[in-house]
Amino acid sequence: MPQGRPVSVPDDGLSTKARRNQPVLAVHTGTGKGKSTAAFGMALRAWNAGLSVAVFQFVKSAKWRVGEESAFAALGRLHEEQGIGAPVEWHKMGSGWSWSRKQGDDTDHAAAAADGWAEITRRLANARHDFYVLDEFTYPLKWGWIDTAAVVETLAARPGSQHVVITGRDAPAELIDAADLVTEMVKVKHPMDAGRKGQKGIEW
Amino acid sequence: MPQGRPVSVPDDGLSTKARRNQPVLAVHTGTGKGKSTAAFGMALRAWNAGLSVAVFQFVKSAKWRVGEESAFAALGRLHEEQGIGAPVEWHKMGSGWSWSRKQGDDTDHAAAAADGWAEITRRLANARHDFYVLDEFTYPLKWGWIDTAAVVETLAARPGSQHVVITGRDAPAELIDAADLVTEMVKVKHPMDAGRKGQKGIEW
Repeated sequence: MPQGRPVSVPDDGLSTKARRNQPVLAVHTGTGKGKSTAAFGMALRAWNAGLSVAVFQFVKSAKWRVGEESAFAALGRLHEEQGIGAPVEWHKMGSGWSWSRKQGDDTDHAAAAADGWAEITRRLANARHDFYVLDEFTYPLKWGWIDTAAVVETLAARPGSQHVVITGRDAPAELIDAADLVTEMVKVKHPMDAGRKGQKGIEW
Repeated sequence: MPQGRPVSVPDDGLSTKARRNQPVLAVHTGTGKGKSTAAFGMALRAWNAGLSVAVFQFVKSAKWRVGEESAFAALGRLHEEQGIGAPVEWHKMGSGWSWSRKQGDDTDHAAAAADGWAEITRRLANARHDFYVLDEFTYPLKWGWIDTAAVVETLAARPGSQHVVITGRDAPAELIDAADLVTEMVKVKHPMDAGRKGQKGIEW
């Protein structure tokens, strides 16, 4: 992307530097591909800039994203062993959240999703990470498992400069209103339309 | 993304496995963010799956994407030192292509872009890499610096299972027709609209 220029300068009394450090809430929505992939690309850039990354996958199945999880695990080890980049954590709902005693209990998805959000709320309050990916987080909002108004309130009140990227179809209007950056991924053409199957390294 | 099912099975005589290994030509276009970021996210996944990655940046300025370049350099070193992932190469037009004698000569952008495509043509013919990112490649096509018909022909004839992702606004119709996967990134809301500036770790 070519370097952008602000179309207007807000009358908020902030210096350019202070404005630069404002935390970003980004939403990737729409029915096209690339929502999560772009979020992980942002996380890669954040990692490189020394921002600690935490991914929370709000999906039932742990089958997908194994490629990204493995790659980010390698990046996290790079940080531990050579001091470059930043720490990485990866948590997923599918097999039971890592901090939860209910390991492997994914029978009650609504409770598991709420548990995930409760933990994220605690981490945001403590400014535990610099860059959060809440992958497929729009679905528990859509299904009413997590209250969107509470999410918007918590995100608005988060301290420090914690960046948050939320992915998934059908992002609620309240969340879009609260976000700084919203991109809709629109499917123009997809290989599965032509009967192709997903393949390793490309789809997962 | 939930696991997809083909909506139809093509009558091409290929087994599922053969169809899985078909090379993908993907295009990320539109005016929204995430086109390149999603391409780098795909490259990260490919790297993790052991596919060698080569990035070619068709941009004048080498200022942007430094975060991604640095992160992929770290991944390339991980492969060299620990044998995980796959090799990574990163080439950019801005400061003169690395293979070119005209180092630092970026006065003739049209010639530099054509030189970049000529090299990619040779590499595709030799199946040198597994996964190519042609970043911002739509612009030299749009500006007539590189012939779109020739690009489509070369891509259609590429041997083996070399995956190619092309990013940039205003992808030509011929390229979209030739692609297997096309996603349009649509800007819904952007922080620069509110006068914010880009910031390290987020924008670059």
